[in-house]
Amino acid sequence: MKSSKETIPQLFEAALSGERRSLGKLLTLVERGGETADDVAGLAHRKAGNTHVIGITGAPGSGKSTLTGRLLELFSQTGHNSAVLAVDPSSPLTGGAILGDRIRMDDLTDENSFIRSMATRGHSGGLALAVPAAIQLFDAVGYKPVIIETVGVGQVEVDVAGAADTTVVVVTPGMGDAVQANKAGLLEVADIFVVNKSDRPGANDARRDLDLMLDLGHISGLEEKTGYRPPIIMANSLEGTGSQEIIEAIENHANHLKSSGSIKVRQDQRTLMEIQNRVELLIGTTAKETLSTEFGKAMINAVLNRETSPAQAAKSIVNSLLND
Amino acid sequence: MKSSKETIPQLFEAALSGERRSLGKLLTLVERGGETADDVAGLAHRKAGNTHVIGITGAPGSGKSTLTGRLLELFSQTGHNSAVLAVDPSSPLTGGAILGDRIRMDDLTDENSFIRSMATRGHSGGLALAVPAAIQLFDAVGYKPVIIETVGVGQVEVDVAGAADTTVVVVTPGMGDAVQANKAGLLEVADIFVVNKSDRPGANDARRDLDLMLDLGHISGLEEKTGYRPPIIMANSLEGTGSQEIIEAIENHANHLKSSGSIKVRQDQRTLMEIQNRVELLIGTTAKETLSTEFGKAMINAVLNRETSPAQAAKSIVNSLLND
Repeated sequence: MKSSKETIPQLFEAALSGERRSLGKLLTLVERGGETADDVAGLAHRKAGNTHVIGITGAPGSGKSTLTGRLLELFSQTGHNSAVLAVDPSSPLTGGAILGDRIRMDDLTDENSFIRSMATRGHSGGLALAVPAAIQLFDAVGYKPVIIETVGVGQVEVDVAGAADTTVVVVTPGMGDAVQANKAGLLEVADIFVVNKSDRPGANDARRDLDLMLDLGHISGLEEKTGYRPPIIMANSLEGTGSQEIIEAIENHANHLKSSGSIKVRQDQRTLMEIQNRVELLIGTTAKETLSTEFGKAMINAVLNRETSPAQAAKSIVNSLLND
Repeated sequence: MKSSKETIPQLFEAALSGERRSLGKLLTLVERGGETADDVAGLAHRKAGNTHVIGITGAPGSGKSTLTGRLLELFSQTGHNSAVLAVDPSSPLTGGAILGDRIRMDDLTDENSFIRSMATRGHSGGLALAVPAAIQLFDAVGYKPVIIETVGVGQVEVDVAGAADTTVVVVTPGMGDAVQANKAGLLEVADIFVVNKSDRPGANDARRDLDLMLDLGHISGLEEKTGYRPPIIMANSLEGTGSQEIIEAIENHANHLKSSGSIKVRQDQRTLMEIQNRVELLIGTTAKETLSTEFGKAMINAVLNRETSPAQAAKSIVNSLLND
C-alpha cells in the first residue's frame, strides 16, 4: 500500500509547484493532528513568512462569508492568489448558519483562490495547532493574502482573530452588535471595522457606537502610541458595496504595519503563541498521565476523602512533575 | 484597614450560619481567582458533598432562565433552599439575551433561594476553577439543589453541564435544535430533555427527533447498561406548564443515581476533573515562565530564524521542564 502513496515531502513539493490536490491532502493531515501534522507544519514553517494574514470575524448572520467571498473576488481580479481558512470553533448550536454560508462561498472559488473550512468541535487544542499550521502551509506555497474567517463565539475566536496581521471585525445594525463586540474584547483586536448590511435601519447608530467606543476605550491609548485608528467602513456585501474600501483599508493597515515595524512584532507574536500552545498541550498530556500514577491516585483519594483540597493536590502533583 | 475586614474563615463561618452577604463576598473572591479563591475553595471543599447539582443548558433563547425561575419557585415552595449559578461562558456576541434573562430571573429571588451569575469572559481557566468552587460553596453552606445554568455555545458548556449530577437539556421547536444539540454532544450528557415553548408549531417534531436520536444513538448502549432512558418533557415555562414534571424527572433521576451507585461515580468524576483542570492551569503558568528563560528565548529565536519548527522547539522546552 505504502508504495502507491506519496510521502509528506513529496506532497509538499507538489503543493509548492501549485498542485491543489496535494495542498488539500496536506491540509487534511494538518487538521487530523498528531506527529504527521507536526511534520507537515515543520516543512511549511521553513518556507513561510511572506504572506499577509487577514482575520475576519463577527457574529453569526453578520454576512462574513458573503463579505469574504467579495474580497476574494476582488483580490483574484487584481492577480492575487488568496486563500480562505474558514474556522468553525466548536460552535455547535450556532453552527448551522455557518455551513450554509460555506456553500454560498464555495460558488466563488476560482483557480486563483483556495477555500478550506476547518471544523474543530471538541478539541480547542487541535484548533490552536491546526490553524497556524494551515496558515503556514498556504503561506509556504505562495498564497497571499490568507484570510481566516471565524465565528464570533468566544475567546478562541478572539485568539484566532488577534493572531492575524489585519483583523476585520464585522458588525450589523440594530442588534447592539457594537456593544457586544466591545464586551467580547473584539474592539481591542480590531484593525478595521465593517458595518455590514448598511442599508438596514440603525446602520449609522452602529457606526456612531463604534466611533464613540474608539474615542472612549483604552484603544485610544494604543492609538496615540501607534498613530493608527481603525477605520469604520459601511458595506453591503450582498450588493458588493464597500468591498473596495475594505481592500484599501487592509492595504493601508498593511502599509502602516510595515512602516511602523509592527508587522515583525505581530508575526513574532504569532509564532510565540504557537510555541506556547504546543508547550501547554504537550505538558497537559504529561499531567493527565501523572494522574494515573500511584502518587496521582493517592492525591486524588486524599481529595475524595476531603483530607486535602483540589488546589493543594494539584500543587503537589505539579511539583512532583517538574524539575527543581 | 485590615482590622475592619473579615478574614476568610470568618466570612465562611458567617456564611455557614446563613449570612447571605458573607456568602456573596466569598463568591466574589472565588470569581476573582488566585490564592484567595483557592483558600475559599479549600474551606468549602471540606464541608461539601451533600448537594445535588442540576445542570440546565440549551441554546440562547430557549427559555432556560424562565424555566430555571419556575423550578426555583417550586423548590422554594417545597421547602428547599436552592441556589442558581448562571454561567456565561465567554459568549460575547450572544450575551445580550442572557443578561436580559438574568434580570427577569432576579425578580424571583426569595429568602430560600440564592441566585448568582458568573461571567467568565476571557479566562476559560477561570471558569473551570470558579464554577466547581462556587458549587462547593453553595453545597457547604447547605443549598440543595444547586442549579447551574449555562448557555449552549460550545465545549466549555458541555463540560460544565456534564459535570452536574443531573443535566437538563432544553430545546425549542422548529429550529432544528434537537439536531444541533446532537451535533454539540449535548445528547450524550443529557439526563432529561425539555421541549420548551411547546405551544409552538413543530413541538411534536422536536420530541420525535429526540426520541429517534435516543433510539439510534450510541446513548442506547448506555441505556442498556444503566437501565435509564432520559425522559422528554413538553413544557411552556412562560405559562409554567411542565415544571412539576421536570422536578419529578429530576427526583427520579436522582433516585436512579443513588440506587445504581452512579451518584458517587459522578461526584468523583467532578472532583477528578477539577484536579485535572487545576494541574493543567498550574502547568500552563510554568510553561509560560519557561518561555522567558535563556533556554526558552534561544528556542524561540531558533524558530523565528526558521532553524527549527515550533513543534520541535516545544518538545525541547517541555523536556527541559520535566523530571526524567
